[in-house]
Amino acid sequence: MSRLWSDLTHTLSPYVPGEQPRIPGLIKLSTNESPLGPSPKALAAIAAQATDDLRLYPDPEATELRKTLAAYHGLDPAQVFVGNGSDEVLAHAFAALLKHDAPLLFPDITYSFYPVYCRLFGIEAETIPLDEAFQVRVADYRRRAGAIILPNPNAPTGVALPLSDIETLLKGHPDAPVVIDEAYVDFGADTAIPLIASHDNLLVVRTFSKSRALAGLRVGYALGHPSIIQALTRVKDSFNSYPLGRPAQASAIASVQDEGYFRETLAAIIATRTRMVEGLTALGFETLPSSANFVFTRHPQHSGAALAAALRERAILVRRWDAPRIGDYLRITVGTEAQTEKLLTALTETIAG
Amino acid sequence: MSRLWSDLTHTLSPYVPGEQPRIPGLIKLSTNESPLGPSPKALAAIAAQATDDLRLYPDPEATELRKTLAAYHGLDPAQVFVGNGSDEVLAHAFAALLKHDAPLLFPDITYSFYPVYCRLFGIEAETIPLDEAFQVRVADYRRRAGAIILPNPNAPTGVALPLSDIETLLKGHPDAPVVIDEAYVDFGADTAIPLIASHDNLLVVRTFSKSRALAGLRVGYALGHPSIIQALTRVKDSFNSYPLGRPAQASAIASVQDEGYFRETLAAIIATRTRMVEGLTALGFETLPSSANFVFTRHPQHSGAALAAALRERAILVRRWDAPRIGDYLRITVGTEAQTEKLLTALTETIAG
Repeated sequence: MSRLWSDLTHTLSPYVPGEQPRIPGLIKLSTNESPLGPSPKALAAIAAQATDDLRLYPDPEATELRKTLAAYHGLDPAQVFVGNGSDEVLAHAFAALLKHDAPLLFPDITYSFYPVYCRLFGIEAETIPLDEAFQVRVADYRRRAGAIILPNPNAPTGVALPLSDIETLLKGHPDAPVVIDEAYVDFGADTAIPLIASHDNLLVVRTFSKSRALAGLRVGYALGHPSIIQALTRVKDSFNSYPLGRPAQASAIASVQDEGYFRETLAAIIATRTRMVEGLTALGFETLPSSANFVFTRHPQHSGAALAAALRERAILVRRWDAPRIGDYLRITVGTEAQTEKLLTALTETIAG
Repeated sequence: MSRLWSDLTHTLSPYVPGEQPRIPGLIKLSTNESPLGPSPKALAAIAAQATDDLRLYPDPEATELRKTLAAYHGLDPAQVFVGNGSDEVLAHAFAALLKHDAPLLFPDITYSFYPVYCRLFGIEAETIPLDEAFQVRVADYRRRAGAIILPNPNAPTGVALPLSDIETLLKGHPDAPVVIDEAYVDFGADTAIPLIASHDNLLVVRTFSKSRALAGLRVGYALGHPSIIQALTRVKDSFNSYPLGRPAQASAIASVQDEGYFRETLAAIIATRTRMVEGLTALGFETLPSSANFVFTRHPQHSGAALAAALRERAILVRRWDAPRIGDYLRITVGTEAQTEKLLTALTETIAG
């Protein structure tokens, strides 16, 4: 607290990111990073940026990256916005599109940054409970709404929503922005991108941090009708003209252009996820159906807190929220095959012990 | 305009950055980039980041970079905030510190992003005219103020303010944050950093884009009392936890550690500036005393618009504002020696022709 702070600063309750501890040998399955590296072409593009041209500003409009993403998704560059990680893209979306007289709707269990943005921007929010199976029930969104935001698949559950349900939301609220946060979509959910052509109220948000294994680079993007993209651009150009440096733009372009590597690594992670869920099930865990690079799981005989603590003792870090409904669940990132075996071994010992 | 936009989005008037045209052979003296490259150690640090570790999130607190900057400036890491370019640092400062019941004061002629931030965050601003010599007159700031922000040296004039004047501002407004934006300070003004120890209302903002020749990387920082830094951190962690990627953090650290290269390139740019001002004076230009890596200059017989157009025809880009008091001035970045000679030749031809 300080006499020098703006009133706003006093009212915030900042987001707490997943721990990034520096413990040698730690198996970190807590922040949904990819167990495999980025495309070698993306790495080569970074190295190629180590020249005197770094003295020059990057393209503030990220023209080449936006063109590359537009071509990849079958859209026009005017339908593409890029930012410094999908968190920055989401922040701009909250400011530019999600503040209206009627409340913003999102699930009670979802990405925990959403309520933080609402505080920052003074947005009234109304949370809609997931059903007993932790599914979004779109019928519950048939109410007064200034806007809607949902991750698909949802976080931290990993549960996907069918495209028909997203279309129901879009049609039910034609005058409200509907943001679908597709951070994890590549691991198994259906993307809402095909709906952009017919719904000017849809914004799809993506990241390079998960399926493209570039969390260390900070690149996210959003796709939608040019008017909705223009809103993001207006806020961005009132905040920071140059959010993406030269290495980030170049490496992201190279990543998108390496489709073969992308598909190959996705398949490997999905295969490991299958093995991981089988192993958990054999130990008596109940795991929600995951369309992400993590699973959300609990054991009927063991508390989430006890399990997380036991894993931590064995140098395995997973994420848990001390929150209603989900306190007994662990969110465990799909690691390498070897890490998955170690996880299952550690859990076997814990449960046997 | 769109029914989907937040009210805020309609009210913004976004910043227009200096042109980044892609004209081969263009001499770009319009965005105050360094004519010399970054430290070779900073470049090597970028190349060293092209590894599979890019799949991992960066340290959200940029601990090593903040430690390095703290040691460099003789401060504690709790007195250091880092962000995605000094524009992001400034944006967070406006939100976290500069919104109060009383107006924010800044000069009538200054960095043109300040009024843009005021619109974005709903901050009431009052501009204080520079005197006839384009100097900040601190006596004019003896009035009701919620906060004060000034670049030192000022932009786009390049004119420096003595430290004693900054101390007068700090003492005159002990309960108001005073932000000194030192983007260009290394080129000849006195830094306010020594005043941090005795004034908890001071925030000093810096960038790696000018004197450290890393505009393509996007790194800025701020220094001040831990309480004022905490305000910035609260807003940052409500907006984007990971604003600086791994390559940016690593390269910035290496840059700070290469003091020899830093001093050498500064001396070279200052020497070229001296030569440039002499050449301009010989052509009849009137140039404000510059403590920056640019000069602000006008010719009594030629309009700014005509001069800028003539230079553009000769593939030399400078910056000009179509604004009261400064419409006849050109802001010209100090380029390489060769670029400076070409500039002076082009101006000689223009004025003779």
